[in-house]
Amino acid sequence: MEKLYFASDYMDCAHPSVLKKLCDNNYAHAAGYGSDTCSETARAKIREACCCPGADIFFLTGGTQANVTVIDTVLHPWQGVISATSGHVQIHEAGAVEFSGHRVIALPNQYGKITAEQIDDCVAQYWGDDNHEHMVMPGMVYLSHPTEYGTLYSLQELEEIRKVCTARDLALFIDGARFAYALACHANDVTLPDLARLCDVFVIGGTKCGTLFGEAVVIPVSGYIPHFVTQCKQHGALLAKGFVNGLQFDALFTDNLYQQIGAGAIEKADRIREALVSRGYQLGMPSPTNQIFFIVDDAKRESLEKQVAMSFMERVDGQHTMMRFCTSWATREEDVDALIAIL
Amino acid sequence: MEKLYFASDYMDCAHPSVLKKLCDNNYAHAAGYGSDTCSETARAKIREACCCPGADIFFLTGGTQANVTVIDTVLHPWQGVISATSGHVQIHEAGAVEFSGHRVIALPNQYGKITAEQIDDCVAQYWGDDNHEHMVMPGMVYLSHPTEYGTLYSLQELEEIRKVCTARDLALFIDGARFAYALACHANDVTLPDLARLCDVFVIGGTKCGTLFGEAVVIPVSGYIPHFVTQCKQHGALLAKGFVNGLQFDALFTDNLYQQIGAGAIEKADRIREALVSRGYQLGMPSPTNQIFFIVDDAKRESLEKQVAMSFMERVDGQHTMMRFCTSWATREEDVDALIAIL
Amino acid sequence: MEKLYFASDYMDCAHPSVLKKLCDNNYAHAAGYGSDTCSETARAKIREACCCPGADIFFLTGGTQANVTVIDTVLHPWQGVISATSGHVQIHEAGAVEFSGHRVIALPNQYGKITAEQIDDCVAQYWGDDNHEHMVMPGMVYLSHPTEYGTLYSLQELEEIRKVCTARDLALFIDGARFAYALACHANDVTLPDLARLCDVFVIGGTKCGTLFGEAVVIPVSGYIPHFVTQCKQHGALLAKGFVNGLQFDALFTDNLYQQIGAGAIEKADRIREALVSRGYQLGMPSPTNQIFFIVDDAKRESLEKQVAMSFMERVDGQHTMMRFCTSWATREEDVDALIAIL
Amino acid sequence: MEKLYFASDYMDCAHPSVLKKLCDNNYAHAAGYGSDTCSETARAKIREACCCPGADIFFLTGGTQANVTVIDTVLHPWQGVISATSGHVQIHEAGAVEFSGHRVIALPNQYGKITAEQIDDCVAQYWGDDNHEHMVMPGMVYLSHPTEYGTLYSLQELEEIRKVCTARDLALFIDGARFAYALACHANDVTLPDLARLCDVFVIGGTKCGTLFGEAVVIPVSGYIPHFVTQCKQHGALLAKGFVNGLQFDALFTDNLYQQIGAGAIEKADRIREALVSRGYQLGMPSPTNQIFFIVDDAKRESLEKQVAMSFMERVDGQHTMMRFCTSWATREEDVDALIAIL
Repeated sequence: MEKLYFASDYMDCAHPSVLKKLCDNNYAHAAGYGSDTCSETARAKIREACCCPGADIFFLTGGTQANVTVIDTVLHPWQGVISATSGHVQIHEAGAVEFSGHRVIALPNQYGKITAEQIDDCVAQYWGDDNHEHMVMPGMVYLSHPTEYGTLYSLQELEEIRKVCTARDLALFIDGARFAYALACHANDVTLPDLARLCDVFVIGGTKCGTLFGEAVVIPVSGYIPHFVTQCKQHGALLAKGFVNGLQFDALFTDNLYQQIGAGAIEKADRIREALVSRGYQLGMPSPTNQIFFIVDDAKRESLEKQVAMSFMERVDGQHTMMRFCTSWATREEDVDALIAIL
Repeated sequence: MEKLYFASDYMDCAHPSVLKKLCDNNYAHAAGYGSDTCSETARAKIREACCCPGADIFFLTGGTQANVTVIDTVLHPWQGVISATSGHVQIHEAGAVEFSGHRVIALPNQYGKITAEQIDDCVAQYWGDDNHEHMVMPGMVYLSHPTEYGTLYSLQELEEIRKVCTARDLALFIDGARFAYALACHANDVTLPDLARLCDVFVIGGTKCGTLFGEAVVIPVSGYIPHFVTQCKQHGALLAKGFVNGLQFDALFTDNLYQQIGAGAIEKADRIREALVSRGYQLGMPSPTNQIFFIVDDAKRESLEKQVAMSFMERVDGQHTMMRFCTSWATREEDVDALIAIL
Repeated sequence: MEKLYFASDYMDCAHPSVLKKLCDNNYAHAAGYGSDTCSETARAKIREACCCPGADIFFLTGGTQANVTVIDTVLHPWQGVISATSGHVQIHEAGAVEFSGHRVIALPNQYGKITAEQIDDCVAQYWGDDNHEHMVMPGMVYLSHPTEYGTLYSLQELEEIRKVCTARDLALFIDGARFAYALACHANDVTLPDLARLCDVFVIGGTKCGTLFGEAVVIPVSGYIPHFVTQCKQHGALLAKGFVNGLQFDALFTDNLYQQIGAGAIEKADRIREALVSRGYQLGMPSPTNQIFFIVDDAKRESLEKQVAMSFMERVDGQHTMMRFCTSWATREEDVDALIAIL
Repeated sequence: MEKLYFASDYMDCAHPSVLKKLCDNNYAHAAGYGSDTCSETARAKIREACCCPGADIFFLTGGTQANVTVIDTVLHPWQGVISATSGHVQIHEAGAVEFSGHRVIALPNQYGKITAEQIDDCVAQYWGDDNHEHMVMPGMVYLSHPTEYGTLYSLQELEEIRKVCTARDLALFIDGARFAYALACHANDVTLPDLARLCDVFVIGGTKCGTLFGEAVVIPVSGYIPHFVTQCKQHGALLAKGFVNGLQFDALFTDNLYQQIGAGAIEKADRIREALVSRGYQLGMPSPTNQIFFIVDDAKRESLEKQVAMSFMERVDGQHTMMRFCTSWATREEDVDALIAIL
């Protein structure tokens, strides 16, 4: 039997509509660096989906690249970015934020999330210290939605965080690398227009949500980041053939594809979670999205790993590990059946 | 009449074979970050084309990104990179090399090229200065082949530069963003195995030579740049779906496609050059490749610009400008005819 | 009454012997950048005091400067530095380490110290993670001795940490900004030769220990940091008149001055600690050196602050604060008497 | 005979008044990081000397440090600094500006100087290029006065440069590392109030003009560089015992010492220049200040170097070298006599 693939949500090329768009426009004759009409069309559709007609939108190629470029261009040199200890920028970006000169100020997470109160305390502690001129000033909050643990912020929680950001003069940046899977999830009450209303910058992820690659950086207030094209270039983040991104995001934002592309993944993830629970596995995280965390003993892990690609999360104790399955827009029903059969 | 497009060689998506490869492998089920089998196959084909079985090969997304990541990871902090004043890293990368902490030591160019003697003098000047501990040590030579002015180094010239690099302990890095157009050119005598033999690092460009995007960084001596994956990540240069690059370069290095993909572009560029000369234009550079430089007066420039997209190079005097046409693998014969008709 | 000064140990100019040395050599006619004979004499004396005849020694101007220059020049770009959460580099250097591109990997401290076991666990966690190529590699351990909380590592503890560093391929860097106060303390069993034997780099502090300014960076194995003069220059850390540092450290290492300069400070600190305890104050840290930490209620703090300059550490609860007194080589007996009288 | 010392103007400790001030205030009991009253007094005197009551003034320790910290904190990340090719930041700072992320845009110098017209052309070229988003934006002009070649800008020339800076939105930064020697020179018509009126930032040098070390960074419009203390800390440029700088600059700006301290040096330099000319040497630069440049053949150079310490500048041809003598506030009349005797 061929191995089953549930290791991640970026194991396949692109949604057929995205590929078709590229093939149909192969001879694009498009201008460079995102100044083309394909990219402009994609931007218009995203602005409409976000109810944010004035937004600046830039297409970058990857998640870490988008995170670092945004964080480094928004923060002042003397500022750091607040993140959950589980945040992607803290854990799995090889210190790219520090490499660009800024500290990640990591706050303890609850299932991947941090609270308005934690953020407020962190900033209060900075300003309350007589020596704060010798410390790193918090200048931005980085959240991911869904989080790295598949959990979701409620709209209420985001509103509260926004309030603290406004009061404390912090930029709010939400990394929506998997936002399509939030949108497809019943538990989610955060929309694209909500992001546009609450954030200073946010990312609509393509890589994990149907494109070959690409992340849309949305800046609701035009000009908020000055000279962003030049700054992207300095970060090695400016794609010569920006229209390749434009074509893909055009497809993704046509006929509500982005809003629907995650639906199958969520449904399949729910089936897998139910199967895990019914077979007596303990779930590792209360995740309602396309990432499924579960605890498995060493023997079962070994046998599973022969048949299915999955992701290591962390050792729980001497005999148990937390592992992760991911579904995606590309997951096939028959693979879910086969996975459930061997759990 | 629709406008003609000769502004650059990165105005179209991808060679049909490349797109087909992506479409045929849409459900790749591939591992992340370039550790997949598609990328491994592509690497094997490139190693073979370069007669360099031990090379490390990494796929990055863009030219500036590849240049900066290579330069920054090869140089010591106290070193700078030697480049022609016309080098891409000096002119059109928004200071990305300096942004990463290193000086570009720019030497005067002759039609886009620098010589072994210039390089040797530059290093001699450094070591001959009593204060060299307070100066920037030359640590690398950056060449582009073809150059930004479409010219070519002869194998003899590269051999001489290599000799100086060895004698002076300089890394040699050749940016082959347009290397396919060198390979297709009669005037060229530099092969991929030559690059592998002469360079410490070189880039085989995809973006301008048939892929949607992507540059192959080839490091002939494995391990020459340590922890390159992590360092790419820090530079925001590690693509999650690295297999998208792998699939494209697999197609590009199948059946000698890369070696042939530039042929039509060169033939068409030659036709345009002949037409320019026969109509009395002065060529701006002795370029035998797919970039065509010519001098045009303001009136003619204005009328041309209404009908054809071309690139501004520089003002020559109060009434004349050097402009550039580019052909590519995607240039159509009928567009060349139309262009010649209006010159 | 004039205010009493116990806020820090860097409130006075320089030990009389140091000032005398400068005055006696005012017309030094010395070469620049530390290449002079005064600096060479100072280096010879320090090498002898450290029983380390082959050490490279460089004089920098300040503590943060020395820390960042050493950390940035020893670490590879993909590495971070392990520190106690209370470490100076983590708390009070305004993110200078991150500003230079590296993460501070902060481990929980016990009275300002971390253990060999914690360090080993941290590195084990990195290498045990399948995704470590996407994480920050620990590359160095930063300790301060005495710590920021005035505590001391035992020689035994340092030997254990050295063992882990060797086994785990970590550089060991000890910041001895206040090392003279360790040397003068009965509880201390770590000598300069011990530092030279155990560390890859260490700093012998002058600023807090009798000079106008200046820190001696000692590198026991010559050449361990290549091109250090040039790298200091890049960090803005190379003093033109390096001989001013040389003259000061010459004085400091003549007739065992450095080994004795802290004695009075320790004796006075002990008197203050005894007085605090006898008056019912709770000490905030088990510090045997020249820093005295104590808990004070708001009313008493307010009255004390009118008469004595001291340092705020942290709020303990709604009514209490941990404050700090510092003694130094310059503290006068009569000021200690006066301080004790008002406690 | 003891060797004569004319190699540089930073070979001696400090003017007697400066040393006396330190000795008289040895037990300063001063607050840290420049927040002390000694520093405040010095600032008040400098503000008065500059007729600029609102200026921010910070004391840094060295010239390269001051240059880099100012340039990096004033420039936006996408900007570079314009300098003469002979500027200290371009030649002798080991690439520290690039190390901090910015390009030095070097313009050809005439005897160490650049003109308003050159600056204007440079900026015009940037904005006139269609691809300027991919280029380094000029953001600041760096001048030294006196220049590295001992020459002086006229007030008229500086006024013209200021006009261009205002028109082109460039910051103007003048490095007055040797400004005392300009003030003492008959040929000079630029005063401290002129600098304060014309510059966005300027440096009043102490290291070469009478202090042990230290440069005063003057920012005429308060708040022009935000959070400068924190940014200095990040650059390793914040001295714990800032009052040591304050005391020295207090002495330097008492009784017009700074305005007079260079007089003897200029007089002696003039004598040496006259002697050189009368003995048939060719002067290398039309310098009226304390640096004397002259051409010497190899035989004479060799014999001179046995008796006098001087500085190598550059090889002029196969048999001749341009060398430099420097006088300073500390140069003795008898040494000048002895030097002239052996020329």
